[in-house]
Amino acid sequence: MISSTEEHDMGSNERAFNFSAGPGALPEEVLRQARDELLNRGGCGVSVAEMSHRGEHFIAIAEQAERDLRDLLAIPADHAVLFLQGGGSQQFAQVPLNLLPEGGCADYIDTGFWSVRAIEEARRYGRINIAASSHDDGYRHIPRQARWRLSASSAYVHYTANETIDGLEFDWIPEVGDTPLVADFSANILSRPLDVSRFALIYAGAQKNIGPSGLAVVIVRKDLLGRARRCCPTMLDYRIAAGHGSMYNTPPTFAWYLAGLIFRWLKAQGGLTAIAEINRRKQKRLYDTIDASGLYVNRVEAKDRSWMNVPFRLVDDRLDEAFLAGAEVRGLLYLKGHRATGGMRASLYNAVSEAAVDALVAYMTEFERERG
Amino acid sequence: MISSTEEHDMGSNERAFNFSAGPGALPEEVLRQARDELLNRGGCGVSVAEMSHRGEHFIAIAEQAERDLRDLLAIPADHAVLFLQGGGSQQFAQVPLNLLPEGGCADYIDTGFWSVRAIEEARRYGRINIAASSHDDGYRHIPRQARWRLSASSAYVHYTANETIDGLEFDWIPEVGDTPLVADFSANILSRPLDVSRFALIYAGAQKNIGPSGLAVVIVRKDLLGRARRCCPTMLDYRIAAGHGSMYNTPPTFAWYLAGLIFRWLKAQGGLTAIAEINRRKQKRLYDTIDASGLYVNRVEAKDRSWMNVPFRLVDDRLDEAFLAGAEVRGLLYLKGHRATGGMRASLYNAVSEAAVDALVAYMTEFERERG
Repeated sequence: MISSTEEHDMGSNERAFNFSAGPGALPEEVLRQARDELLNRGGCGVSVAEMSHRGEHFIAIAEQAERDLRDLLAIPADHAVLFLQGGGSQQFAQVPLNLLPEGGCADYIDTGFWSVRAIEEARRYGRINIAASSHDDGYRHIPRQARWRLSASSAYVHYTANETIDGLEFDWIPEVGDTPLVADFSANILSRPLDVSRFALIYAGAQKNIGPSGLAVVIVRKDLLGRARRCCPTMLDYRIAAGHGSMYNTPPTFAWYLAGLIFRWLKAQGGLTAIAEINRRKQKRLYDTIDASGLYVNRVEAKDRSWMNVPFRLVDDRLDEAFLAGAEVRGLLYLKGHRATGGMRASLYNAVSEAAVDALVAYMTEFERERG
Repeated sequence: MISSTEEHDMGSNERAFNFSAGPGALPEEVLRQARDELLNRGGCGVSVAEMSHRGEHFIAIAEQAERDLRDLLAIPADHAVLFLQGGGSQQFAQVPLNLLPEGGCADYIDTGFWSVRAIEEARRYGRINIAASSHDDGYRHIPRQARWRLSASSAYVHYTANETIDGLEFDWIPEVGDTPLVADFSANILSRPLDVSRFALIYAGAQKNIGPSGLAVVIVRKDLLGRARRCCPTMLDYRIAAGHGSMYNTPPTFAWYLAGLIFRWLKAQGGLTAIAEINRRKQKRLYDTIDASGLYVNRVEAKDRSWMNVPFRLVDDRLDEAFLAGAEVRGLLYLKGHRATGGMRASLYNAVSEAAVDALVAYMTEFERERG
């Protein structure tokens, strides 16, 4: 815990308050366990990072991680869970390569930076219908479903459940009838309960709420496997990954292990219902501080604001540098906004404690009083 | 160091002798450093696994890793170094997707299990000419270049510099004139000096001599960038990766960091000339033990034997279980051969010490005396 307001080197045992958008904060308990067994996992004489992925020790780690994730999200048995590589960005290609037939059409909802990335990549593989977009108001809201224009013969409907840069989040699941529903949950998976049975496919880069970067989790209905296009690399074919327990080749073992530790940690916190209550309080405290201030601004419509990523601006952007410098002195790190938007962004992933948010709002209030 | 011949639980500080084919042994010094800074890297208050990849701390780590790798291998300035995901298997698709034009042809050399994997994947993208193969003798040798039948208009020539399962290794670089030379160095990169300037492209999954799994290093001549096919996912386009310093999206930061620590460790060992001398001694000791025995057999032609992966069989395979059980008691781990071949395999990557090889040959000698 950092309380000094004087500039100081951070000692080797002090931990900062980490608001990074990803790779993001990891729970300190998880890092401690990983540290304590980094040279020798459970008396087996090697690090998890040195284990054959085909050996009994790693297989046990991998299977436990999947079981715990299934428990946390109540994933139905007819969905496969895949531990892959390439992050969300590789899924932008992998989804159409597996689910969009040659000459087919898919519906996409455009709610910001990451939606656009997904749409641009999908366009390389077929006709993409933008069924709804909030581009024209600068991505300050999520289009209500009543205004969506879904196409008649869509292979799937894709949306971005959380826009990490624009700061929007769906707190509802679209109703799309029998059309497969596909969603990018990179930043908000495991932040609150989710009815996975409503989805044909969910994907998430790990480096926000699951674990370190270099891992992506895909949850896909098994009846959708086996439809990959001829040009789809074997490594990107969901059926191959599912058929080999995500071990067609060597998986990212250490990242998978850390993810498993985080799933355990989440269960120990009380699961997703408990973590959602904490996350609700965290975001409310920060948005309330922003809305009550004359210095900080977030322009996203209140009902569509992300719990995980809170972008905000200082009304006088000449104060940006001073704000960031003062934050760093207090061990409040990675508050600088994305290059595409400027301003500030505080990411409030599961591993960001309420104490971290308290420290941030205290600093913001103090900064406004002194400089605002 | 483990000397007891009695069965015992390995204490939390004892390290086994790890002969895993990959993920393989990592240097203990590297693991110690990673452990000591796992919660707080260099006083910056966060773990490397929690750092934004766009922040100054991680950028410094990433750039240092590339510099050290360039130093170790004397990589020419006209080659880009990429830190990617998906392992060697993803490269089996990525190479033709980037270098094989529609309707084009490429030459492949077939020397074993991994060559075949590369060939099968490449066949999905064009005409593949098997310019040479040792399939007919059960992959017991590497075809001499004089017998290769290269095609006249090949987009590139691909070979597998080390066959991790079959236990073969090229100790020479093929001469292919102006045709781009492409090689899979997954298991033997950094095990001895290499003239990178002879290659158009080298790729290597990290989990043998570079670091943990979940990372792949690609070294590619810059004039070959920008040729990706239309159907190539953006994430698999070398030009995109090179243009973004391997950060088109979030890279596997922790794996990249560990790789950087290993590059430093290699430099501290005296670089590749020094490590090659150690590797030469290690493999000689093991092959000499095998060849002098009446119990152990390796059938690869002596000049083509891999320094990194030594497969061997017991002439009486009913002794396999007893051999493996006795090895485990002595902390000699992961000696079981690949599922595809059975028997045994000892991998002697850079991080496997001479002491480990001494312990292995002592055990093999003792086992033969008692049970052979």
